[in-house]
Amino acid sequence: MTVQGLPMTVPASDLPARVRIHEVGARDGLQNEKSTVPTEVKAEFVRRLADAGLTTIEATSFVHPKWVPQLADAEELFPQVRELKGVELPVLVPNGRGLDRALSLGATRVAVFASATESFAKANLNRTVDESLAVFAPVVTRARDEGAHVRGYVSMCFGDPWEGAVPLHQVVRVCRALLDMGCDELSLGDTIGVATPGHVLELLSALNEQGVPTNVIGVHFHDTYGQALANTYAALEHGVTTVDASAGGLGGCPYAKSATGNLATEDLVWMLQGLGIETGVDLGRLVATSVWMAEQLGRPSPSRTVRALSHKDQ
Amino acid sequence: MTVQGLPMTVPASDLPARVRIHEVGARDGLQNEKSTVPTEVKAEFVRRLADAGLTTIEATSFVHPKWVPQLADAEELFPQVRELKGVELPVLVPNGRGLDRALSLGATRVAVFASATESFAKANLNRTVDESLAVFAPVVTRARDEGAHVRGYVSMCFGDPWEGAVPLHQVVRVCRALLDMGCDELSLGDTIGVATPGHVLELLSALNEQGVPTNVIGVHFHDTYGQALANTYAALEHGVTTVDASAGGLGGCPYAKSATGNLATEDLVWMLQGLGIETGVDLGRLVATSVWMAEQLGRPSPSRTVRALSHKDQ
Repeated sequence: MTVQGLPMTVPASDLPARVRIHEVGARDGLQNEKSTVPTEVKAEFVRRLADAGLTTIEATSFVHPKWVPQLADAEELFPQVRELKGVELPVLVPNGRGLDRALSLGATRVAVFASATESFAKANLNRTVDESLAVFAPVVTRARDEGAHVRGYVSMCFGDPWEGAVPLHQVVRVCRALLDMGCDELSLGDTIGVATPGHVLELLSALNEQGVPTNVIGVHFHDTYGQALANTYAALEHGVTTVDASAGGLGGCPYAKSATGNLATEDLVWMLQGLGIETGVDLGRLVATSVWMAEQLGRPSPSRTVRALSHKDQ
Repeated sequence: MTVQGLPMTVPASDLPARVRIHEVGARDGLQNEKSTVPTEVKAEFVRRLADAGLTTIEATSFVHPKWVPQLADAEELFPQVRELKGVELPVLVPNGRGLDRALSLGATRVAVFASATESFAKANLNRTVDESLAVFAPVVTRARDEGAHVRGYVSMCFGDPWEGAVPLHQVVRVCRALLDMGCDELSLGDTIGVATPGHVLELLSALNEQGVPTNVIGVHFHDTYGQALANTYAALEHGVTTVDASAGGLGGCPYAKSATGNLATEDLVWMLQGLGIETGVDLGRLVATSVWMAEQLGRPSPSRTVRALSHKDQ
């Protein structure tokens, strides 16, 4: 399920030798799907992603089911996948109660999710930015005390649907706060997909200048305007080695209003493989997984690589 | 028809100040559409593209109608648009007969189309690479004698569906031959969309080393595997200032077998505008043009930017 001998591997100078893909399809992808996927299908999805070589697979979210009904089965799902060998399975936790649920099931990696803008903090968290950070601080402390690795998501790092362009200092402030409370890594989200490469580089430099080293920064691009892979390439040139992506581009239907699809893992892997950057992922297996998942969802994958490679098999 | 204040303009260092977009939608786009578009619609499309600020609009092809029935109306179309002010209107010419037809209608820019691989030369031109170059040589000479500007397309510069990865020296040889016979500029085609940024940079460097300056090189990427914009960004970093793109991503339906869509002009303009690189294009008008053209064709545009911005209007 690959093109014979392609992509040709031709490294570019000064890029990382290896990239860790933080696979978000099972969480960020499925939570944005209209249909709710059966728990056994989700578990099989995570297993197939692991079998394709992904080593960091965000499994689910312990947000209250009222807010994210698509992932209301976190308690049932997590035990079905937690024994997978060689795979990290981070889960989202919104507060102390969510952390309790996650830890009690054996989660060893959790993620909190902040916003760089007041508008999105209000819309998504029903709090101000500072109020949400105040909620996260004890969650992060306790997670760390329990030996868990903590990721801090920052939404709306580039543009915001209500506020337009987001000033760098807002993003830097939230990133610093998350690191200061003990987060191990950050994920810079371009939630509405508006970023371009110069903006990405400017934010990374601003973070570095404020003492945030590149090796704790992950990038999380959405392909709403087709910019995700170009932005990723710019981030790699800056030295970023953690890239979020969603198998098959799951999350936000590209045919619907306010399309906000994630960068497709397959499109990312095609580029990284072409650049000779190791990921450990078997592209053919990953495409097969996304084709299978698209069948479960009853709609084609929006990933261009998935479409191109699966059409060749028809 | 743009997101308020977005994309935010943040230049990256060492990129060109201005890029010339070589718009291929009316030719490369429409010749790959299943349905044949009425001549008056094509003329209106070219006019709207010009109105959106595009200054190089490939209008049609003087290939024999038997081979490209979609563009069989070149003689009717060209006179309807040739008076457009401030716009260059290159046309494809396959041989002396095609050149005669083009010149007799007042064309001042023509393009010949070679292949870097024997397999595609045979499939597309029914000749060997050298035989096709021998056909083009007198065409280019005569076009130049008549004062026309000549572009030389080179297909399959990175990968070939029959031959796999394409050796650099094959591409360099064909590029050199086209320049030596008098072509003013080249367009490096990734016809099956398999290239990645390192490969792009390697080819550009190889061409430079063989005396082909960057300022005669245009890049022509297809988005089959989602790589087109990342490859374009890498080419910009190398100093390339001519980029081919197709309004709305016309050409090769993304939902069909062997999808081979062109880079969408809107996705390109979003990135260039974000980077502060001048193009002269009004993104809102261009999106409106592609939405209109999609209505004529009866299917949605595959451009992510067109989809995102037009959905906002619903």
